[in-house]
Amino acid sequence: MVFVAHEEASFNSFAAVLGNDVAIKAYREGTLPFPDGAIIASLHYSHTPSEENNKVFGRSQSFIAGAPTNVQFMVKDSSKYAATGGWGFAHFKDGKPADDDFMKTCFPCHNQAKTRDLIFTRYAP
Amino acid sequence: MVFVAHEEASFNSFAAVLGNDVAIKAYREGTLPFPDGAIIASLHYSHTPSEENNKVFGRSQSFIAGAPTNVQFMVKDSSKYAATGGWGFAHFKDGKPADDDFMKTCFPCHNQAKTRDLIFTRYAP
Repeated sequence: MVFVAHEEASFNSFAAVLGNDVAIKAYREGTLPFPDGAIIASLHYSHTPSEENNKVFGRSQSFIAGAPTNVQFMVKDSSKYAATGGWGFAHFKDGKPADDDFMKTCFPCHNQAKTRDLIFTRYAP
Repeated sequence: MVFVAHEEASFNSFAAVLGNDVAIKAYREGTLPFPDGAIIASLHYSHTPSEENNKVFGRSQSFIAGAPTNVQFMVKDSSKYAATGGWGFAHFKDGKPADDDFMKTCFPCHNQAKTRDLIFTRYAP
């Protein structure tokens, strides 16, 4: 399990992206599409300035992962999820899954990263 | 091993902070000072806009961990490193350790976080 960090500044969001062994192996070897069984998790946090760090540095430079906002999963099963590019999507906020309307937005956006099997996040070695 | 992400915007740096079991246990339980044997690693990457992601989103919002810049470690051994608050420091760039002059800068800065046992990064659950 290895992370890939990214940040969405105007959404004030930090993400750490984790993969199970199947996903990380595919990431490392550049295998596309990801094989069935790959699971990718994205842990999202608020993008928060660190006042205590900035006090030490003497200037505003440090941002940290603040409160958790949601946890998302993508699970590869090319038969079960054939209608959505082979990926099943999940979204949890405060431990509760999102409703169907919300979930309909996942695939159309991720499908724009079709050349990378719907996965935006690249591997950070 | 769990991560804690932070970012230093004006240094254009992304960090993922990892701990061994001793360190993460102390993080989770809020134990201060960290016990001997705790090891904390900070993986630093350049803070890079993602043009391919922004193209999909239709606006400039996405930053990712770019090229790795350095890897740093803090190792707790209260007798061996008594002179520097019980922490040994290490810094590697392209797999090579930093020289002695560079290493002299670690402790004075981290010592400003004395109330948190010299560790700036907080735990992101």
